[in-house]
Amino acid sequence: MSEMVKQVVYSEFGDPTEVLRLEEVPRETLEAGQARADVLRSPINPSDLIQISGNYGVRPPLPAIAGNEGIGRITEVSGDARGLAVGQLVLLPAGIGIWRSEVVASAGAFIAMPEGDIDQLSMMMVNPATAQLLLTDFVTLAQGDWVIQSAANSAVGTYVVQLAKAMGVKTVCVVRRESAVQGLLDQGADVVLVDGPDLVKRVKQATGGAKMKLGLDAVAGETFGRLGESLEVGGTLVNYGAMSNEPASMQAGAMIFRNVHVRGFWLVNWFERASKEERMGVYAALTKAVAMGTLYAPIDRHFSLEEISEAARYTWAGERAGKVLLAPNGI
Amino acid sequence: MSEMVKQVVYSEFGDPTEVLRLEEVPRETLEAGQARADVLRSPINPSDLIQISGNYGVRPPLPAIAGNEGIGRITEVSGDARGLAVGQLVLLPAGIGIWRSEVVASAGAFIAMPEGDIDQLSMMMVNPATAQLLLTDFVTLAQGDWVIQSAANSAVGTYVVQLAKAMGVKTVCVVRRESAVQGLLDQGADVVLVDGPDLVKRVKQATGGAKMKLGLDAVAGETFGRLGESLEVGGTLVNYGAMSNEPASMQAGAMIFRNVHVRGFWLVNWFERASKEERMGVYAALTKAVAMGTLYAPIDRHFSLEEISEAARYTWAGERAGKVLLAPNGI
Repeated sequence: MSEMVKQVVYSEFGDPTEVLRLEEVPRETLEAGQARADVLRSPINPSDLIQISGNYGVRPPLPAIAGNEGIGRITEVSGDARGLAVGQLVLLPAGIGIWRSEVVASAGAFIAMPEGDIDQLSMMMVNPATAQLLLTDFVTLAQGDWVIQSAANSAVGTYVVQLAKAMGVKTVCVVRRESAVQGLLDQGADVVLVDGPDLVKRVKQATGGAKMKLGLDAVAGETFGRLGESLEVGGTLVNYGAMSNEPASMQAGAMIFRNVHVRGFWLVNWFERASKEERMGVYAALTKAVAMGTLYAPIDRHFSLEEISEAARYTWAGERAGKVLLAPNGI
Repeated sequence: MSEMVKQVVYSEFGDPTEVLRLEEVPRETLEAGQARADVLRSPINPSDLIQISGNYGVRPPLPAIAGNEGIGRITEVSGDARGLAVGQLVLLPAGIGIWRSEVVASAGAFIAMPEGDIDQLSMMMVNPATAQLLLTDFVTLAQGDWVIQSAANSAVGTYVVQLAKAMGVKTVCVVRRESAVQGLLDQGADVVLVDGPDLVKRVKQATGGAKMKLGLDAVAGETFGRLGESLEVGGTLVNYGAMSNEPASMQAGAMIFRNVHVRGFWLVNWFERASKEERMGVYAALTKAVAMGTLYAPIDRHFSLEEISEAARYTWAGERAGKVLLAPNGI
C-alpha cells in the first residue's frame, strides 16, 4: 500500500470543473477505535456539484474534501475496535468527504454490508432514501393511485418508478428528451412523456384524466407549474431539485383555485427530524432491496480520481444513460 | 319607482372594458317569501374583473349579471316574508349578480345590518374575511410575530394591517410604488418597502432580521419568491392573487433548503369547507369592527352603472388611492 492518500479537494466555491483539484497527503495513523477503508465507489450526485458550487443549503468549511457517499472495504482496524474485520464491505460514513482513495474514521461510523453489486451499494445513502421519502412523507398513496414526476430518468426518478411499482402506484414520468422514454418504460413506468408547453393536456389524455394527488419535481422552471396543474384539487407538489437552473414557476390560479400545496424536500432536513428508529427502518428495507437487485439505478460510466474535472463536466452535461461513479482504486 | 331595472351583464368572457354592457329589463314581480332591495353600493373587486375575463376558478353560465357583493335597502317585502322591514339596510345575497339597480331574492338571503357607513359595509363579504382568514387559517401567530405581505395597499392588504395590529402582530408591507408608502404607515404598518430585486436584504435590515412564519402574496411573479425567501425556515407563503399577471416564481432552494410551504387561498373554497358556525363567527366579528369603523378600506371614487367600462378600466389600472365602488342609485 502506498504511504500517500489521494483526495479531491476544493478551497473555494465555484464551477466544479475549475475548483476541484487532486492532491496527495500522507496516510493518517489509526487512533484507538478507528478503522481504515479503501474507497471502492462513490457516485457523483447533482447535489455534490451544487454543494461545490456554493449553492447548497449548507456550506462546509474550506478547504473541503468532496463527495458524500460511497462504499469501501476495510483494510485496517485498530486493536480495540470490535466487530469490524479486515475485508468487510462497508458503507462509508456521511459527511467526511468520500472522493479519496481511503478514509479513516471511528469504526462505529462504518456500516457493514453484504457482498453484492458495489456500484449499486455505493449509492445507498442518498437517492433511494430520497425516492422512498418523496413517495411516503407527504401524502398517503393507495394501490391504483397515480403519481407524476419530472426528471424521471434521474437516479431518484428511476428509484421512484421501481418503488411506486412495488406499492401498486402508477407513474407518469416526464423527461426532457425522447431518448429517455424507452428506458423508463422498460423499468415499469406506466406513462412517459417528453416535457413541453402542452404537457398538462397530454397527461390528461395519457391517463384518461386520472386524479393525481402527488407530483415530484426536480427540474423547476415551467415544468414545476405544469406538474402542479396536472394534480387534482388539493394535491401536493414536492420540489427537490432545479435541473433547469431556473426558478420554479406556477400560475397563481393553480394554487388559489386548485388549492395545490407546494412543499420542498431535502434529505438533510429529514435526517435532522427523523428518529434513529425511523432512519433505520427506511434504510433496512432499502438496503435489502438494493442488495437483492430489485432496486437499482442504471450506471453510465466510471471515472478515476485523476479524471475528476472531466467527470464533473460529464455529469452536469445531462445526456447520460445513468449514474456517474468514481472508482478511486480502479474498476 | 321606474318599472325598468338597470343591470350590467356579459354574454362572453373577455376584457371587462369590452364585454360588459348595461341593459334595462322589466322589474320582476315578487313571489311568496321574496324581498326587493335597491342596490346602494357594490365594490369592483379585482376578482370580479378576473371572473368576467374568464380566468376565475369557476365560470358562471352566460349571460351573467356581474358583481358579487354589496349593500342595499329593502324597498318591498312579500306579505309572508317575516322579519324584514321596508327601509332595512341589508347585505345583498352572494352569487346572484349585484351590479344592478335592484335585486329580488328570498327574504332569508338578505342579512340585516345596522345603519352605518354604506361604502364600508358594502365591502363586508369578500375582503375583510379574506384578510382575517389569511392571518388565522394557515399558521398560529402570537403577539410580537411578524408577517410580510405584498399588494399591501390593496383593500385586503389594508385590512391585514388593521387586523394584525389588533392581534399585536407586526407587518412588513411591500408595495409597488413610493406613493403608497405613507398611507400604509398612517394605518399602522410597521415597515413599508417598495418592491425590488434586493427586497430580501432590505426586509432583513428593516426588521433587524426578525423571523417570519407567514407571507401573504397577491402579486405573484418574482415578488412571490422574494416573500418566500424572506420567511424563516419552515415558514408558510400563501398566494391569493396575481396582480403582476405573471406566474408565481421562486428559487427551488427556498423550498428545498428553507422548507418554505406554499399554499393558496380562495374564499370560495373556505365557504365550501367551513361550517355555518365558523362562517357566522368570522362575519359577526368583522361586521362589528366595520360598523364601528375600526376596520375600513380607503375609498378612491364612485361610478354609476352607466360608467361601468370606465370604472373597470380605472380599477384595473392600479394607480388608485383606494377602492372603486359602484353606486347604482346615486351617491
